[in-house]
Amino acid sequence: MTTAPLLALPTPALILDEARMRRNIMRLRAHLEPLGVEIRPHLKTVKSVEAARRVLKDGIGPATVSTLKEAEVFGAAGVKDILYAVGISPDKLERVLSLRAMGCDLTVVLDSIVQAEAVATASRLSGEPIPALIEIDSDGHRSGLAANDPKLVQIGEILAKGARLRGVITHAGESYAAVGAEAQAAFAEQERSAVVAAAETLRRAGLPCPVVSLGSTPTAHAARNLDGVTEVRAGVYVFFDLFMAGIEVCTQDDIALSVLTTVIGHQKERGWIIVDAGWMAMSRDRGTANQAIDQGFGVVCDGQRRPLKDLIVVTANQEHGVVAVRPGSETPLPDLPIGTKLHILPNHACATAAQFDGYHVLSANESNDLAYWPRFRGW
Amino acid sequence: MTTAPLLALPTPALILDEARMRRNIMRLRAHLEPLGVEIRPHLKTVKSVEAARRVLKDGIGPATVSTLKEAEVFGAAGVKDILYAVGISPDKLERVLSLRAMGCDLTVVLDSIVQAEAVATASRLSGEPIPALIEIDSDGHRSGLAANDPKLVQIGEILAKGARLRGVITHAGESYAAVGAEAQAAFAEQERSAVVAAAETLRRAGLPCPVVSLGSTPTAHAARNLDGVTEVRAGVYVFFDLFMAGIEVCTQDDIALSVLTTVIGHQKERGWIIVDAGWMAMSRDRGTANQAIDQGFGVVCDGQRRPLKDLIVVTANQEHGVVAVRPGSETPLPDLPIGTKLHILPNHACATAAQFDGYHVLSANESNDLAYWPRFRGW
Repeated sequence: MTTAPLLALPTPALILDEARMRRNIMRLRAHLEPLGVEIRPHLKTVKSVEAARRVLKDGIGPATVSTLKEAEVFGAAGVKDILYAVGISPDKLERVLSLRAMGCDLTVVLDSIVQAEAVATASRLSGEPIPALIEIDSDGHRSGLAANDPKLVQIGEILAKGARLRGVITHAGESYAAVGAEAQAAFAEQERSAVVAAAETLRRAGLPCPVVSLGSTPTAHAARNLDGVTEVRAGVYVFFDLFMAGIEVCTQDDIALSVLTTVIGHQKERGWIIVDAGWMAMSRDRGTANQAIDQGFGVVCDGQRRPLKDLIVVTANQEHGVVAVRPGSETPLPDLPIGTKLHILPNHACATAAQFDGYHVLSANESNDLAYWPRFRGW
Repeated sequence: MTTAPLLALPTPALILDEARMRRNIMRLRAHLEPLGVEIRPHLKTVKSVEAARRVLKDGIGPATVSTLKEAEVFGAAGVKDILYAVGISPDKLERVLSLRAMGCDLTVVLDSIVQAEAVATASRLSGEPIPALIEIDSDGHRSGLAANDPKLVQIGEILAKGARLRGVITHAGESYAAVGAEAQAAFAEQERSAVVAAAETLRRAGLPCPVVSLGSTPTAHAARNLDGVTEVRAGVYVFFDLFMAGIEVCTQDDIALSVLTTVIGHQKERGWIIVDAGWMAMSRDRGTANQAIDQGFGVVCDGQRRPLKDLIVVTANQEHGVVAVRPGSETPLPDLPIGTKLHILPNHACATAAQFDGYHVLSANESNDLAYWPRFRGW
């Protein structure tokens, strides 16, 4: 990584190292292809058409999204197979139908009879059978039915009348609390066995279940057996972050995103260096606070993105970051004069990237050119 | 507040109640005018030209900003007197000079000899004396020189050679930890005495100091004596939030911002209601976590914005909020079916508003019309 093209950027700026991103994408493909499943990347992390082209198979999909806005933007960019992986509310079905009318095969997710009836009714009224996955709760994390909930078949039967029951979906969100490949593999198996059991229940009831979808970045990397699963979803693996490094899914060197910042002051008596990346740039995410190593608002690196020993952003105001040596460390504060450029590795790539309008991309082809990939947001 | 016009909005959506905003603006004016100071509102909270017109005196200024992007947008919209209140880095001086060349009287802030020399040099080279305030540290919060630091006069003398020494500035950021008007008034007096002492030091050295600037939302409301002060800065007072309610600067009823959300699911056994406002909508700000009452990711209100007893967003994923009864409360979970619209009051108005591209404004004139005021962001 050469710093020359970065020096001209106003700071704070979001930097994406394309070589690291490619490595991360290839790593998950290499792990999952032998397990016989499709990857359906979750584009909520990148929220960029340019980035999505590099993440998606053949540049076009399949894909997962977290908002209808994402479905609309990626759909318009040519992604034709999209899963909207947040429980559908009835008043969003009009937008779902508009997307389907434009040729995007959008699938919705639900876990209640009320939603299933709304989807079936909208399908019948429009003459367009809306495909739906039934959400299964594999770990008590958030939404979904227990795999043995009798409502599973009821919902399947409601969908079968007009809508299209496409299968089942789960997300082992609790795997984010599991440290190391062994613990994450156990979550992966729990995720698999719950969603496969639900699929079998539907099939036993004579209902179709072609799709069996699961995933989270930790379980996607740790899974050893995905029998019965058709597709795996993951999002943050494309960039990785300090949270994922903290649970050993990646190393700090794998993190493809950083925030470029400039030193704007010092409080030497307090051991502080003030930089122009505050929480508006880093986000308020403090996801590493409860991990074994608390990284504050981010790990501070030099201009070549080499981590500076024990240096983190200890506190952040809106546009000020306070850089200091990690509590308990004896490392002396380095001499970083006003104007020095630094990189900060983020706690949570999804949250930090969302603070910016685009990525300044260090090309993987070793050229000195910086590309710019716009991001979008909203709902 | 009528809900009719809100029902058509895709959720999550950012709602601004203009009547509450006006009341907040008038309250601070009514408090500060008798104290003989100018208000220089901090526009980092609103980041909207439409909102700024209502916040600023005569709609045009003076104003405070936290980024040069804000200065550029508000400058282009006709605000002519702008203070950029984050320590200047030398590589940003070119943009400062461009703004001044366009007729915007932009003032910078600094607290070091290196910055003062850079500002003086840029002023001499351009023939445009850049006005600067010297930052004073009144409470150990962040940046600034101690009021008795000998560098104060040194910096003033450097600025006097080519640049323009305009005065001194401080911000009692630690007042955010002070609960109640009495404790905040003590911070206000500490803020005042430090910055006035610094002004007197400069004047004794024969240096000019026409501006004596201080402020934070808590101290601006609590100050009883502002002798020697020329202007007060505050930002979040325009909207207020749960953090400010938690330290008794306002009530929950004063909060002008809310996030409109839709119920998308239930986990009845766990006492959870799932809504479509996750941290992407609310921000990751958990500022109330260390207050006497932890409000989670926000206080849940009904469609008419009446708080629902003890109901908060207890956890948040990217696009899912988990609503539950506050830990320890015996209040039963209300029956809120899928599709129900709710308002969530935010922990931190600056952070939550920054997650959205604009405000849907409930007009103060009791009409049913919703205005839309776009926001901007970036640096």
